Amino acid sequence: MITRHSPGPRLSHAVEYPLNGTMVATAGEVADDPNADITAQTKQTLAKIDALLAGAGTSKNNLVAAYIWLPNIGDFDAMNAVWEAWIAPGKAPVRACVEAKLADPRLKIEIQVFAVKD
Amino acid sequence: MITRHSPGPRLSHAVEYPLNGTMVATAGEVADDPNADITAQTKQTLAKIDALLAGAGTSKNNLVAAYIWLPNIGDFDAMNAVWEAWIAPGKAPVRACVEAKLADPRLKIEIQVFAVKD
Amino acid sequence: MITRHSPGPRLSHAVEYPLNGTMVATAGEVADDPNADITAQTKQTLAKIDALLAGAGTSKNNLVAAYIWLPNIGDFDAMNAVWEAWIAPGKAPVRACVEAKLADPRLKIEIQVFAVKD
Repeated sequence: MITRHSPGPRLSHAVEYPLNGTMVATAGEVADDPNADITAQTKQTLAKIDALLAGAGTSKNNLVAAYIWLPNIGDFDAMNAVWEAWIAPGKAPVRACVEAKLADPRLKIEIQVFAVKD
Repeated sequence: MITRHSPGPRLSHAVEYPLNGTMVATAGEVADDPNADITAQTKQTLAKIDALLAGAGTSKNNLVAAYIWLPNIGDFDAMNAVWEAWIAPGKAPVRACVEAKLADPRLKIEIQVFAVKD
Repeated sequence: MITRHSPGPRLSHAVEYPLNGTMVATAGEVADDPNADITAQTKQTLAKIDALLAGAGTSKNNLVAAYIWLPNIGDFDAMNAVWEAWIAPGKAPVRACVEAKLADPRLKIEIQVFAVKD
């Protein structure tokens, strides 16, 4: 059972999660189409993360933490529009989002998440 | 019980923590006053983190890991002066601190921590 | 027991690890010789991490997650050559690698890892 403190549409300011059961961590994932815009790249990356979480037996309902790296922090609002539509209501993880260049200069976003298994 | 290896005033080089009980993770937190200087913003951010940890039933005595993002790595020493005064003696977490632009260009620091509950 | 999904020579796209036993986290570690090239700095940093993991009773065989920060993302391929030779075959952790300036401008890499104990 995850306890979320000050949960919002984008992130919770703190989460408590029991250290039992199983943790699922994804790699920093990126879009399949590096030439797509920030909206499409965010959607593609989150679809990949959904698939990875499902493959490991969990889902975005059990997210505890997320990291988002944007090569252009000016993409913050466009990324958040997609992110907030994706987050299960009331179930936002803690999150940090900062600007950082990625290995492929065409990529506009990289996302990593951690989720527990029920 | 946390075992700290090569603990220093700023960070421990490794920590061991039992995977039982509860983990508390905060979001990447920032200062309330984005126009304050690095010293004041670091203090404000750590005060927020103290409050979040207390609200989740733990404290800086149980820190296991911390991330610090500075838009200007030249603020490293000023940040550390506040950080080292805040850390409970002998109880430093592992830490990584790198330069990264934040969403609000006025902000000078973002900090995230993880702490176990006793 | 760690379950790795889509494991490759560099990273796994997801890992599952049981939340019992003990987690070992290292700090963001750097090379002893800040004037060495990226290849030598990566090797030195990984040797430090090997020693820290051994000192905490675990090893790279039990890695679950890693973060790599490069002040020059152009060093990505040279870093990966060393990294992939170091990773135990079939046992790659999830990983995120982004560009970020470090506190000492001579340093070319910082690495942090998390490993469970058997």
